[in-house]
Amino acid sequence: MILTVTLNTALDLTYRVPALTPHATHRVTQVIERPGGKGLNVARVLAALGHETVATGFAGGATGAMLRDLLAATPVRDELVATAGPTRRTVAVVDTTTGDTTQLNEPGPAITPAEWAGFRTRFTELLDGARAVALCGSLPPGIHVGAYAELIRLARAAAVPVLLDTSGEPLRRGIAARPDLVKPNADELAQLTGSREPHRATRDARRRGAHAVISSLGPEGLLAATPEGLWRAAPPAPVKGNPTGAGDSAVAGLLSGLVDEAPWPERLTRAVALSAATVLSPVAGEYDPSAYEELLPRVKVTSDSEAA
Amino acid sequence: MILTVTLNTALDLTYRVPALTPHATHRVTQVIERPGGKGLNVARVLAALGHETVATGFAGGATGAMLRDLLAATPVRDELVATAGPTRRTVAVVDTTTGDTTQLNEPGPAITPAEWAGFRTRFTELLDGARAVALCGSLPPGIHVGAYAELIRLARAAAVPVLLDTSGEPLRRGIAARPDLVKPNADELAQLTGSREPHRATRDARRRGAHAVISSLGPEGLLAATPEGLWRAAPPAPVKGNPTGAGDSAVAGLLSGLVDEAPWPERLTRAVALSAATVLSPVAGEYDPSAYEELLPRVKVTSDSEAA
Repeated sequence: MILTVTLNTALDLTYRVPALTPHATHRVTQVIERPGGKGLNVARVLAALGHETVATGFAGGATGAMLRDLLAATPVRDELVATAGPTRRTVAVVDTTTGDTTQLNEPGPAITPAEWAGFRTRFTELLDGARAVALCGSLPPGIHVGAYAELIRLARAAAVPVLLDTSGEPLRRGIAARPDLVKPNADELAQLTGSREPHRATRDARRRGAHAVISSLGPEGLLAATPEGLWRAAPPAPVKGNPTGAGDSAVAGLLSGLVDEAPWPERLTRAVALSAATVLSPVAGEYDPSAYEELLPRVKVTSDSEAA
Repeated sequence: MILTVTLNTALDLTYRVPALTPHATHRVTQVIERPGGKGLNVARVLAALGHETVATGFAGGATGAMLRDLLAATPVRDELVATAGPTRRTVAVVDTTTGDTTQLNEPGPAITPAEWAGFRTRFTELLDGARAVALCGSLPPGIHVGAYAELIRLARAAAVPVLLDTSGEPLRRGIAARPDLVKPNADELAQLTGSREPHRATRDARRRGAHAVISSLGPEGLLAATPEGLWRAAPPAPVKGNPTGAGDSAVAGLLSGLVDEAPWPERLTRAVALSAATVLSPVAGEYDPSAYEELLPRVKVTSDSEAA
């Protein structure tokens, strides 16, 4: 199975309104509730691709119970660890006239040292049987900034390939613990390396300890620096739509290719096609399966000497 | 006891953000959860004033369970009737820099005919023992527009004084069923009578069937047309703050005075002082008890021949 970790889970609410006007009253025309947090998004896509998928992380309170009810309706196995504090909500307010989204994110509960210790134990148990593990998203309050580095060391000790998708100091500390894969976007990469030039920044990120760095170039695809070579992967044409969850779908594509022992160009193809099929989907954060199948043979992967 | 009815209850969330910017991402700095809907607000104020208070209406789903947990922490007795559909949420986004509020209201679940029939039975049982009843707020989907008129006839048959605080067609139909009291604001009154002149509109509303009409003049207080006379009641000076819940506090003041058999000027004094103390409270929808005590002797009530 593939294990995904979401330390800062969320009950994601999507509200559709004709247009958001500050200081006015809005009647919400549609409400969508989903189990949220980057690792849960990755898990849903992996399960939809047919992979046995297990999700861990934290959930608590009435909102945590709602999240777990929603997760139970998916093929993802729920191995979330209970917290005393209630799971946060996020509210995405989508203007139906333009498709623009306004995001409101609750802070989430502080994790206690005992809860973190309990999680580490559960994580170690779950590694036994995992073919890959993804560590995704921000750290909740109360968890030390080196938490991902700690989980990466546990995964490496268990010989389970580990992907890290986070930002800021947790990414910096995590990379130093030598994960197999990191997947930064342009902003995360610039924050880490100080460079906005993708080739230079990707090379720099690899030097910091990651075995492979897959940098997102947004609508232009991915740039990959791996032990086996350097590639660019791009969709046949730039896609327009809602980019929510596109990065999480790319992570799912990389993990899917990894556990299938596919060569790098095939892994990148899956990642780019899933990412584009997510942008094209009418439902934010979901991918369009027929668009995915249609895109797969059309993704362009080229060897990229410039990234060397 | 005093009975309050909230057919369209809500789990009220208040989010504090520095400033709401459309199409941006916001970290919410504070989250407040409250049992919401106008009748529940009235009930909380009545209970805080020391009245034995019972709340009925509908609640369902996980959000309904959260609302009932929050209500259990107050002195209000929970007699809500279960629905299959989940209780709606409302989100009030307060800009901390200006105090301005952006409101997002979920639509709420449709009530089935069987649920409405079950509610009517429970309402009739609760009238036995009620010294007054308040019918507050909008009607949820699925309930016929004459629902408040129906409840007013049941209350009158049980000889329980009934206050109606709603708007639009439910107000128009309700007034025709001859409630003891209606408390429209300027917009509701204008919608009902076609007039924005408060004296004329208040007189007109009385002619339509209400025994007494207490019209809100916003920060300038109340205008009362009753069988015993006509009054204006005003705070000592206009108050500045958040008007959320000020109307519900005024309803609580009127009911409090009614069950204490206070003369009309005393009832209006309580209503105006509670309303102003709610505007002055730092927490939206709550009243400031010390401001209330301080305002009580300073509310000006004058006989108003012009409203005759």
